[in-house]
Amino acid sequence: MTAEPPRVRPHLAQLPGYAPVVPLAERARLAGLNPEDCLKLDANENPYGMHPLVREALQSALRDPTFGSIYPDPNQTELRSALSRYTGLDPSMIIAGAGADELLDLALRALMPPGAALITCPPSFGMYPFLADVNQLNLVDIPRIGDFTLRQESLLEAVDAAEDNAIVVLTSPNNPSGDLVPRPLLRELLAAGATVMLDEAYIEFAGRDASAQDLLSDFPRLIIMRTFSKWAGIAGLRLGYALAHPDLVADLIKVKQPYNINQAAESAGMAAIASADEIGRQIDSIRRTRSRLDGVLREIDGLDPLPSESNFILIEVNPAVGTGRELHDRLASVGVFTRTYSDPLLTNYLRISIPRADQLDILLERLSSVL
Amino acid sequence: MTAEPPRVRPHLAQLPGYAPVVPLAERARLAGLNPEDCLKLDANENPYGMHPLVREALQSALRDPTFGSIYPDPNQTELRSALSRYTGLDPSMIIAGAGADELLDLALRALMPPGAALITCPPSFGMYPFLADVNQLNLVDIPRIGDFTLRQESLLEAVDAAEDNAIVVLTSPNNPSGDLVPRPLLRELLAAGATVMLDEAYIEFAGRDASAQDLLSDFPRLIIMRTFSKWAGIAGLRLGYALAHPDLVADLIKVKQPYNINQAAESAGMAAIASADEIGRQIDSIRRTRSRLDGVLREIDGLDPLPSESNFILIEVNPAVGTGRELHDRLASVGVFTRTYSDPLLTNYLRISIPRADQLDILLERLSSVL
Repeated sequence: MTAEPPRVRPHLAQLPGYAPVVPLAERARLAGLNPEDCLKLDANENPYGMHPLVREALQSALRDPTFGSIYPDPNQTELRSALSRYTGLDPSMIIAGAGADELLDLALRALMPPGAALITCPPSFGMYPFLADVNQLNLVDIPRIGDFTLRQESLLEAVDAAEDNAIVVLTSPNNPSGDLVPRPLLRELLAAGATVMLDEAYIEFAGRDASAQDLLSDFPRLIIMRTFSKWAGIAGLRLGYALAHPDLVADLIKVKQPYNINQAAESAGMAAIASADEIGRQIDSIRRTRSRLDGVLREIDGLDPLPSESNFILIEVNPAVGTGRELHDRLASVGVFTRTYSDPLLTNYLRISIPRADQLDILLERLSSVL
Repeated sequence: MTAEPPRVRPHLAQLPGYAPVVPLAERARLAGLNPEDCLKLDANENPYGMHPLVREALQSALRDPTFGSIYPDPNQTELRSALSRYTGLDPSMIIAGAGADELLDLALRALMPPGAALITCPPSFGMYPFLADVNQLNLVDIPRIGDFTLRQESLLEAVDAAEDNAIVVLTSPNNPSGDLVPRPLLRELLAAGATVMLDEAYIEFAGRDASAQDLLSDFPRLIIMRTFSKWAGIAGLRLGYALAHPDLVADLIKVKQPYNINQAAESAGMAAIASADEIGRQIDSIRRTRSRLDGVLREIDGLDPLPSESNFILIEVNPAVGTGRELHDRLASVGVFTRTYSDPLLTNYLRISIPRADQLDILLERLSSVL
């Protein structure tokens, strides 16, 4: 017996694992190109990177002799206060995490017994089925139809069937289809008593007034997830937050890892909030580039871009051009890294993150070279 | 029903939560002192802070325009390769986490069904009972006796009673008693088939040759936890790692959060490994200061320091001086922040982290002023 390592629990042993993004250096190597000659448009990062003001704030923080060596504040007092300024909500309704990923996991783990239903609407973020597996939840898929429309009646039926033992996770704007969750649908679900985890990772690209956060006061079963990985360009530092009823936030703070926010993330996040107007100009530029890219794609035979409220566009690829995977591979060979999916719903689709304004012509040139 | 927020699961609702360290600024404010006039000796951080070479490496990393904005490598390839150089073990036996805390939780969560036994030997690290609560485990305490000696026979009986359904967690050197786990005891447990999580968070202060990592090749049920928070002075950046059988590491990598290591931690950790010799000189200084502090404490009536292999000393306080809590409070009033415990086993004890060499006289002066 002692010759065998301990085994992970049965529900984890067969886990396929989350399919993460392949690092740029690795993709460039496979393409035989230098990383700096490639366009990394596969992970919806902010193409402008960390804002110079955030970088300066980090540089300045590093000059403090105590930086990095002291345990972070488990109550996240300063950070939650900054997030309160950013969101306009009371700090008691805010909890920060190491990316929204940590908070998605924490909320499911804290609220859902094994076997409870996680109701999702694929195609959507690949982390949800992963977290359902990890938390031993029953994944209930209510696939979007045709043009990726959410099915309100089926969702309400699924909530009803699961009785109180379910969480609905919705993404607004959705990844990868780029559309916002219709507000009437969200209200219907909440009014029916559903617990809804609304993932607003990309909300800044739709405009923050598209957020459902104003519904929190009427609906205590709404939990909103946000991240700094997209709009603020600090995916590598891991910072997200959740907005929820103060009682739930208080409970989650007790259950979370005490020191879950690293100090670099805290410093960068607070600087990003202080520089939200300046970063907003990057976001405006991304939205303009999105509009230009969408316009050009519509003119290309065989490509059909979906309208996007986010920092990426999902493109339907006509089988005459090839599958999404085939176009992805051809683009990769010329140093344009995009995202395809193994999900059969998405065989004919390709997702492409919005590049910097100055990269758009290169992207279009390389795209036309492989069509 | 919709007027109520969702409730956390019953085993979490009554959670007392982990009692984290109160931030320095808060402690200084309560004492009516400036933080820079205080000695923060309550959390076993490296008193020299982040090494200048690590700071320079972070500053240099920050100058890379892609720093911080790209998702980290889920396979931790470069970091595990650096950890392989530091430990001498193959990368397949190494997994990195956001502090050892994350890996302690991940291993328990992945290996232990609800109700399984977590066997601990209090007094020890407060995170273990917290994680037992979070993971719905049955905490089996085999308290240390008298002078905090581990009870080998009772441990073996507890392992036997739990059949295969247990993990023993041991800390070497132990926090707060400062002693190493005796090697024969560890071998006996492993030879009996026990799964042992050995927390070597402080091993560098004992000397890395005091590690049990050489036992990994003979005992696949041994899991060793390590951290950069103590020796490398980057507690605020959150970096730890586990050493274990390659099959278990492969499974844990599939179950963990894909992007669990933030880029600042990765850069700092790799720099710390490259500067291990230079940081080693800080460690040597801490060990010399430990020896000097121990010598002085032994001369003080009413204080009885335990021999320590770590970067702190546990002091038995004679009731004539007061309880540990009372001495703690008197020290806090003069700006010396130490650690006491609510655990009845530790009523008469006070734990004090080793200060910088240049802070020792100030510490001794303030200590004598309150005795």
